[in-house]
Amino acid sequence: MANCTRREFLGTMAMAGIRPVEQASADWRDQGILHLERSPHARLKNVPVRAFTMAEGFWTSRRQVNVERSIPTLLELLEQHGVIDNFRRLSGRKQVPRRGPLYTDSDIYKWMEAVAFVLQSGDHPELRATFDRLTEEILAAQEPTGYLNTYYVEERRNLRFKEMHRGHELYCLGHLLQAAIAYYRATGSRRLLEGGIKFVNYLADNFGPTKDPLLAGHPCLEMALVELYRITGDRRHLDLAGYLLQGDGERLKLSPAQMVYLFSGKPFTSRMRLEGHAVRAMYACCGATDYYMETGQADYARTLETLWQDLVRGKMYITGGVGSRAQGEAFGDPYELPNRLAYTESCAAIGNMMWNWRLLAARGEARFADVLERALYNGVNSGMSLSGDLYCYRNPLELSGDPSDRIRNPWYDTTCCPPNLERILASLPGYFYGVSGEGLWVHLYHSGTLDWRLADGTRLRLIEQTRYPWEGRVELEVRPERPAEFTLFLRIPDWASGARLTVNGAAQAARAGEYAALRRTWQPGDRVVLDLPMAVRLTCANPLVAENTGKVAVERGPLVYCVEQLDHADVSIFELLLDPAAGFKEEFRPDLLGGVVMLKHRGRAWRTPLTQEPLYAPWPPPRRATRPVEVTLIPYYTFQNRGITAMRVWLPVAGS
Amino acid sequence: MANCTRREFLGTMAMAGIRPVEQASADWRDQGILHLERSPHARLKNVPVRAFTMAEGFWTSRRQVNVERSIPTLLELLEQHGVIDNFRRLSGRKQVPRRGPLYTDSDIYKWMEAVAFVLQSGDHPELRATFDRLTEEILAAQEPTGYLNTYYVEERRNLRFKEMHRGHELYCLGHLLQAAIAYYRATGSRRLLEGGIKFVNYLADNFGPTKDPLLAGHPCLEMALVELYRITGDRRHLDLAGYLLQGDGERLKLSPAQMVYLFSGKPFTSRMRLEGHAVRAMYACCGATDYYMETGQADYARTLETLWQDLVRGKMYITGGVGSRAQGEAFGDPYELPNRLAYTESCAAIGNMMWNWRLLAARGEARFADVLERALYNGVNSGMSLSGDLYCYRNPLELSGDPSDRIRNPWYDTTCCPPNLERILASLPGYFYGVSGEGLWVHLYHSGTLDWRLADGTRLRLIEQTRYPWEGRVELEVRPERPAEFTLFLRIPDWASGARLTVNGAAQAARAGEYAALRRTWQPGDRVVLDLPMAVRLTCANPLVAENTGKVAVERGPLVYCVEQLDHADVSIFELLLDPAAGFKEEFRPDLLGGVVMLKHRGRAWRTPLTQEPLYAPWPPPRRATRPVEVTLIPYYTFQNRGITAMRVWLPVAGS
Repeated sequence: MANCTRREFLGTMAMAGIRPVEQASADWRDQGILHLERSPHARLKNVPVRAFTMAEGFWTSRRQVNVERSIPTLLELLEQHGVIDNFRRLSGRKQVPRRGPLYTDSDIYKWMEAVAFVLQSGDHPELRATFDRLTEEILAAQEPTGYLNTYYVEERRNLRFKEMHRGHELYCLGHLLQAAIAYYRATGSRRLLEGGIKFVNYLADNFGPTKDPLLAGHPCLEMALVELYRITGDRRHLDLAGYLLQGDGERLKLSPAQMVYLFSGKPFTSRMRLEGHAVRAMYACCGATDYYMETGQADYARTLETLWQDLVRGKMYITGGVGSRAQGEAFGDPYELPNRLAYTESCAAIGNMMWNWRLLAARGEARFADVLERALYNGVNSGMSLSGDLYCYRNPLELSGDPSDRIRNPWYDTTCCPPNLERILASLPGYFYGVSGEGLWVHLYHSGTLDWRLADGTRLRLIEQTRYPWEGRVELEVRPERPAEFTLFLRIPDWASGARLTVNGAAQAARAGEYAALRRTWQPGDRVVLDLPMAVRLTCANPLVAENTGKVAVERGPLVYCVEQLDHADVSIFELLLDPAAGFKEEFRPDLLGGVVMLKHRGRAWRTPLTQEPLYAPWPPPRRATRPVEVTLIPYYTFQNRGITAMRVWLPVAGS
Repeated sequence: MANCTRREFLGTMAMAGIRPVEQASADWRDQGILHLERSPHARLKNVPVRAFTMAEGFWTSRRQVNVERSIPTLLELLEQHGVIDNFRRLSGRKQVPRRGPLYTDSDIYKWMEAVAFVLQSGDHPELRATFDRLTEEILAAQEPTGYLNTYYVEERRNLRFKEMHRGHELYCLGHLLQAAIAYYRATGSRRLLEGGIKFVNYLADNFGPTKDPLLAGHPCLEMALVELYRITGDRRHLDLAGYLLQGDGERLKLSPAQMVYLFSGKPFTSRMRLEGHAVRAMYACCGATDYYMETGQADYARTLETLWQDLVRGKMYITGGVGSRAQGEAFGDPYELPNRLAYTESCAAIGNMMWNWRLLAARGEARFADVLERALYNGVNSGMSLSGDLYCYRNPLELSGDPSDRIRNPWYDTTCCPPNLERILASLPGYFYGVSGEGLWVHLYHSGTLDWRLADGTRLRLIEQTRYPWEGRVELEVRPERPAEFTLFLRIPDWASGARLTVNGAAQAARAGEYAALRRTWQPGDRVVLDLPMAVRLTCANPLVAENTGKVAVERGPLVYCVEQLDHADVSIFELLLDPAAGFKEEFRPDLLGGVVMLKHRGRAWRTPLTQEPLYAPWPPPRRATRPVEVTLIPYYTFQNRGITAMRVWLPVAGS
């Protein structure tokens, strides 16, 4: 594009049959989670959240609880803990001391982003009014320069941008921008957005390679800036993101250890592995992928691939959770994936999902959607209770059941995870589809109606019926406004070997881990049926994962399962063995845990509890007798929704 | 004793053939690590450090390095980091700001205790002069009330005893007393001891159940107070220890979580498990055992047994290291013993050793000596480099070999471990023998000459020759001053099944895990020969230890072995398998690591590296081919003495 004029460029696109993107994106209503219409290196464009009306099903009830329970109760708690008062005291509306850790501003911004995404799916006057009221509270605390932060004021004023390794000033701004952008896309209102832009421009004026040094500290602003650029087209916004990703840690005298922990301060493209604080690392990867989609820089593409391989080859839990170490909330070494000690912050799983969403957009490869779905259905999904008002900070793969082990809580002093979970649920319809010049992409499956258009402007409705993830059948009715030739890309999950696919009854190729590309002239009313195999699967881990030797995880469809002690009155779940010769009985239980497929299995248990054996003994160990026991498995995401009890994902296999 | 007069009591003892203890202990020279002559509930008495002159052998070279290198270089570092200047600034000798964390006083005290123990083995004029000089520096900073602490002064003065959950004021005093007591027993000088007593009496005057509340915070003072009581006979000193062990956390409004972490603040006898900060827990257990030996309270005996069972049944590494969690430097759940993430602070292993030393004294049961020896030879021993000037804070059972993983360092800002290791090495001769009314006990084996006496005053020399732990033969020549009937108790380690024992060539019973009790009228020149089986042993862990399934540890004698990457040029140590069908070739290598028995083993390795396999895959896993490789094992305590390299203790077994 650098070598041709704008007019030439548009001409080229028209010749290639691609509609000039500006037209398509002129309206804020048409912008998705990511607005990629003008992003030259995005293979897939997003579909607006409002374009997919989700019908009854797995996510719909959770999304309803999110709006009816989670979002209102969290606002109350944010108020109670002074998060909004922190703004009011600056605008003089309240005389109170500042409260909470230095990053609390981001919590209300994230909550507002959740509200904005709710509004993208349909109006909600009360939430809209609350958003507007909060916007005024926030902007009233903004300084004339554009600076906005409730912590670095008064006696801490002279510390602004002086302790960026811990200050979270840019992190808060990043979340403000994300809220403002989501609200703009919900309502067309630029009120909060303009406030954010003012602060961004203040940064662009005062910081940069030839000005004062700036540090992300906690990455987040990078992706927000690229998204802002996608609205404003202001190159300074993209360049500031690039500057932050480049890292100015040397001028800031950051230590190597700090650059590891912060996942910022040195060139993103110099990274060889995921390390340091997991949420920081994931958000940095999000920003870098966004930056890549605008710039196409090859070194970014290489680094992103290196880091993604590092993730999936040794640093991701089977739940899609990441960041195994409590110390520094950090990535561990490759294969360092302890179950009970898993830190696996909800925000890190969300970061993983968001990153893979961006990689999917950039590349259009199913492997990214596989990771996204794994994280979404398991390690993200577990983070919010079925009641909607309790949240996990950690999402471990094993719990001792100790009464002190209260893993689901209504509030955390660092309450980043609750609003993060809320914004994901609210934005969820935006994750199901994509559009490219070739046609329409279906990434995830859920009943509902997509009402959108192809890249060439042809309107298209897609009516989907499924009981996924409880059942594997997905029925799609394709309704273009007129017969149209395009490809319908259907994702066949990597676990779905043996999937069957038909178009109007005629069998089609469907390979697990790929998008089935159905190219034809689609007639209104064409029917596609996908049958995903929902047999229970036993999965084992690489032996380099020290804790999982001789163990398996039980999976069914996209869901990882677990056992809880309260379903096992007569045996400790730490004494259980799965018997590979015995099958699994599946039963949909509408009354249980919001409605789940429960699994029953005729397993084994040690006849004499292992706790009666010594800690160390001469090798070889004694032959131990077992007895049959009934094992009950429930989806991992529902763990600890019936009280505090021991829980386990990885289970030993009898005879191994 | 409560029911008889002192005269009657002494009379009873004389009748029982026991010499009045006061006579025996009148001299500071006769006091051991613990001075238990008058402790009614101590089955065994200690032998003075100076009574055992260690000859050439395993510990002698390490002890020499300790005196010649470790102790001098650490003093330099303590000076460089301002630890002693912190005292000088209070006495006006230097105008400098206070430096270091709030507990630095304890570091110099612990260093001084190490010096004092060196002096108990023989004079060293330079170290003695340094000790005296430091004593003056310290006492010059003591306030007229007796209060002595370099942190809670000036602007922090009004925080004294106000933040005892973190303040370490009593912890520092505990170490001061331990240094002062050790120096008194080395030289007879009470100069520092009187300073300590002054502070103790200040505490006794101002704090207690009916006065202001006091909290150990970091247990340590308890055991020091009981030891002080053993010198002073002042009941207030014992009672203050009892008060601290009882815990006054309610009056101090400690939270339950604080009482867990601090292992103080609530009745010691209410504890049901080892939990919280591992060093705190171990030191509290030391103090409680000391308190029990004076008072004989049954609830203490019960709690100590409960906690010890908790330790050995699920919370102790095979190295004797304890405290698996980095978070809070804490005990984990039962069986939570990760290898690479093992926190296993040197001080915690030392605490474990010190606690078992006290339990051994109280009970005279070999199981305590077994734990003590395990910790001493492995998890304590590993803490100091062979060069004597690098120290481990953590002693994990696996290292990745990452260059950032610098586990041996000359200095830590929290430098508790280095002087702690130094005091243990210096005091070591005091751990080998014990005396009871029945006779002499041999707990550990090393060449040297014991010159001491039986409980009835009969002088006894014991001349020991052995190359233990490299060889299993121990030869003892018993030389009482005249023929005397008594029992010679020889510890047969729990691992030593098949040990052979003779007296003057006649076979004797010797059961592993017990003391062989050789009662006879010993003639000067009687010869005892013990042959401990030194065959390599494979040990497996309880399957509830998640990381060790299918793995074994290699042990020989009291030593745990490990593999290091630098001995394996052609294969990653994480791809190795031991072959139980193949044996181990033993070779003493005088040139290697200060002289060790190295083990060679014809093991296996995966033909295709596991790193090339995916992280998760369908069960069952593929059959993997292996190839033969030569495996080299070295004693665990020598790990990382040849540079940073990967290391592993637990190794998978082929075919399991």
